[in-house]
Amino acid sequence: MAVQINQDSLSTQFRNLKNMRDTEWANLTTNANWAKFILNETFDARFYGIYLLETYHYVMHNPKHQALVGAHMKEKIFKYIKFCYEHAEEETGHEMMAMHDLLSLSLEKEDFQIPSPHPNTEVFIAYLYWISTNGNPLQRLGYSFWAEDSYQYIGQLIDKVRTALNLQKGQMTFLISHATIDEKHAQEIEEMINDFCNTKDDWYSVEKVMRTSLKLQSNMLDSVLSEYLNLKNGGASRYDFLNKLL
Amino acid sequence: MAVQINQDSLSTQFRNLKNMRDTEWANLTTNANWAKFILNETFDARFYGIYLLETYHYVMHNPKHQALVGAHMKEKIFKYIKFCYEHAEEETGHEMMAMHDLLSLSLEKEDFQIPSPHPNTEVFIAYLYWISTNGNPLQRLGYSFWAEDSYQYIGQLIDKVRTALNLQKGQMTFLISHATIDEKHAQEIEEMINDFCNTKDDWYSVEKVMRTSLKLQSNMLDSVLSEYLNLKNGGASRYDFLNKLL
Amino acid sequence: MAVQINQDSLSTQFRNLKNMRDTEWANLTTNANWAKFILNETFDARFYGIYLLETYHYVMHNPKHQALVGAHMKEKIFKYIKFCYEHAEEETGHEMMAMHDLLSLSLEKEDFQIPSPHPNTEVFIAYLYWISTNGNPLQRLGYSFWAEDSYQYIGQLIDKVRTALNLQKGQMTFLISHATIDEKHAQEIEEMINDFCNTKDDWYSVEKVMRTSLKLQSNMLDSVLSEYLNLKNGGASRYDFLNKLL
Amino acid sequence: MAVQINQDSLSTQFRNLKNMRDTEWANLTTNANWAKFILNETFDARFYGIYLLETYHYVMHNPKHQALVGAHMKEKIFKYIKFCYEHAEEETGHEMMAMHDLLSLSLEKEDFQIPSPHPNTEVFIAYLYWISTNGNPLQRLGYSFWAEDSYQYIGQLIDKVRTALNLQKGQMTFLISHATIDEKHAQEIEEMINDFCNTKDDWYSVEKVMRTSLKLQSNMLDSVLSEYLNLKNGGASRYDFLNKLL
Repeated sequence: MAVQINQDSLSTQFRNLKNMRDTEWANLTTNANWAKFILNETFDARFYGIYLLETYHYVMHNPKHQALVGAHMKEKIFKYIKFCYEHAEEETGHEMMAMHDLLSLSLEKEDFQIPSPHPNTEVFIAYLYWISTNGNPLQRLGYSFWAEDSYQYIGQLIDKVRTALNLQKGQMTFLISHATIDEKHAQEIEEMINDFCNTKDDWYSVEKVMRTSLKLQSNMLDSVLSEYLNLKNGGASRYDFLNKLL
Repeated sequence: MAVQINQDSLSTQFRNLKNMRDTEWANLTTNANWAKFILNETFDARFYGIYLLETYHYVMHNPKHQALVGAHMKEKIFKYIKFCYEHAEEETGHEMMAMHDLLSLSLEKEDFQIPSPHPNTEVFIAYLYWISTNGNPLQRLGYSFWAEDSYQYIGQLIDKVRTALNLQKGQMTFLISHATIDEKHAQEIEEMINDFCNTKDDWYSVEKVMRTSLKLQSNMLDSVLSEYLNLKNGGASRYDFLNKLL
Repeated sequence: MAVQINQDSLSTQFRNLKNMRDTEWANLTTNANWAKFILNETFDARFYGIYLLETYHYVMHNPKHQALVGAHMKEKIFKYIKFCYEHAEEETGHEMMAMHDLLSLSLEKEDFQIPSPHPNTEVFIAYLYWISTNGNPLQRLGYSFWAEDSYQYIGQLIDKVRTALNLQKGQMTFLISHATIDEKHAQEIEEMINDFCNTKDDWYSVEKVMRTSLKLQSNMLDSVLSEYLNLKNGGASRYDFLNKLL
Repeated sequence: MAVQINQDSLSTQFRNLKNMRDTEWANLTTNANWAKFILNETFDARFYGIYLLETYHYVMHNPKHQALVGAHMKEKIFKYIKFCYEHAEEETGHEMMAMHDLLSLSLEKEDFQIPSPHPNTEVFIAYLYWISTNGNPLQRLGYSFWAEDSYQYIGQLIDKVRTALNLQKGQMTFLISHATIDEKHAQEIEEMINDFCNTKDDWYSVEKVMRTSLKLQSNMLDSVLSEYLNLKNGGASRYDFLNKLL
């Protein structure tokens, strides 16, 4: 029942996917509250701190749901399954980069208890587990497709944060290592998409997850902004230990 | 490490939760696009049809993640665990009410294949599985707390839909049976919350899930609206079999 | 691809299943080491204590994997799914009967830490989770089919234990409540089997789980015996707090 | 609450584990029915065929539950988690070696449908999932510890099978590749055990899983023997397509 796509159209499908990624990112960086705020407003290290905390939370799950894709697959697409496990291995422990960057702002581990994730971070995490263990097993590639290769889109925003907060490279290990094009990774993901996306449902599912996960991360970043503004305005906050950064 | 709350303040906590529910619902019914649309615009049966399809999708999972709360609990709070399984039993098959209402609009099962859930419906489903199997095991009560007793909030909207589409009661079995106060259910849920929410984290988690799941359902309903407008404007749509309803 | 069975043969299939249950039980009670030991040897309360500890461990999982059958089902066999949840509710907390009986032997909760389950108890638990979440969703009925109605087979053994240890009824709440025919339960299980087992695979799977789970419980009971003999012989033992019972 | 072990005794613990492995294997190869049968009796290719079918079934799950260990870990022991994913990747697709060896006996894929796993194979699989997702996260190392390095124990048995059936090396790819000491693997597993087993519970759990999983595989092999004898005696059998091998 899977609707096969003519082989000649595969590269068209892939070009469409890439164009859609460009469009979605352009839309976000132009219209999302968090993006406009970064470009146009002033902020202090607490904004970056909240971002790093929420990033710490969602990033620790990336290798887990990546591995679950392999563990749940019934189909014997060994090359893709191996990619899942290898990718899971490579992403293990990356949340410690976010934690390192947070501590580098001059916090001590003993100064705070890590607050639980923001509800919108939890929604993002929940969705990634769901699409990794239900539905088309290729669809998580739609998440990797934007997550692994974002510097071209957010480089300007990262630069603004660095300048505004006068950060050293060693204080942005997570952002720099993840936003920079990881040629090998990006290539592997493109290869997986092109090798294994065959049916209409494959392409639809990859596209769906690309759009939806990008939107959910944008929602998370909007929440980072709201929490920062609340903190700045002196509201009660689970992030109030970050006031030490002033 | 669980911060115990003084027993005298329990009813205050519960009153706060109830007030928050009132506020959130009032906010939605006043400001959400879907709510304003229902009250102020004209629409045809395709709008209700898309709603029923998405409802069919998320409702079929309700008993499943409700049961998973019990199956995952390590704590021996037997009364609550039994509530989970009993509630799961009672909710089994309720998606068929939504399907019945859809078919009652004059569709035949053979006329269409049920399209896969909208991405925002999937986010809603994903979140409910996540909070049912991770974190504070009481937190799903925050979902039941608004889901089981909503007529007081959306009665006016339901009436508008009924009048606008000239629907019979037998074509609204899902909405009427679920929106109407189910006294027994509502009472059981209040009892669970009051009996077992003891710590700050318990109340925080229940409140968090109440707010977040209500917001995610509202997002789903906004998508129902977008999809309807797209269909009305002649856009390509996975719901185009509903054009038969005109 | 499901091979349908002629409706007339259903009762034959069920009769075969019942006969097989008789045969398997007869085989166990005649040949299993634990059964021969109970009938022919002398023992003290530590034997019953070890049995109650292992029973406590596996019984606490019964409602959990029972509920998982419903939560994992894709098929919309609502009557069976409701049975799963209702059954899960009814079995919740039954492990406390085993714990009650253990304490009634004159142990105080403070006297001991519950040792982790015996490896063979863990194998039994592991298998029940597996067959509840993989394969034919009806197959767990093969476990319920023997577990809910065993007095006719082991009544004589229970009597021997009671007499040998001079136990009161209130010290055998688990065994008496579970071994006695629970007419309602037994009838519901027979009804489920007869209503929903249609294909060759259904009957094969139910039979397979009946045989295999019965064998795994027998292995668990053999381990109870080995552990008792080891304790009696003064071997190092995680059950040595039971020596207080002498 | 974790009981720490004096660092000096670590190598003693490891030596004990190794000795226990020697003892368990020696016990099996001397006393297990399947081992005695191989050494002392005559058999034909159907015996090897049934073995390969059951091996095909359990081996396909090895990378899955190996990956689940990593996906379920709460502890941030990144080196061990990476080992889990890397190991999962390396084991992906190994069941195809068993299938290859089976087909090499002169079967065509079209000649048969792969029968479902034997109940005792299923018990083995179920246990490996259970111990990979519950309890001490290090315990699965007890399985790898014997599974990856078994030639020293069963080399003589393998030789007997090869001679008896006049097999070429290319017809024993699974057995030869898995039974031969994989120096790198064996070393990694020993490293993991020595690096991360610290508490009494760690060593107990690894030892427990080593013994129990070895026993469950032996039970599977006993079932291979029973099924072969049944087939040889003309009994009804799900393996009867193997009669073509005569």
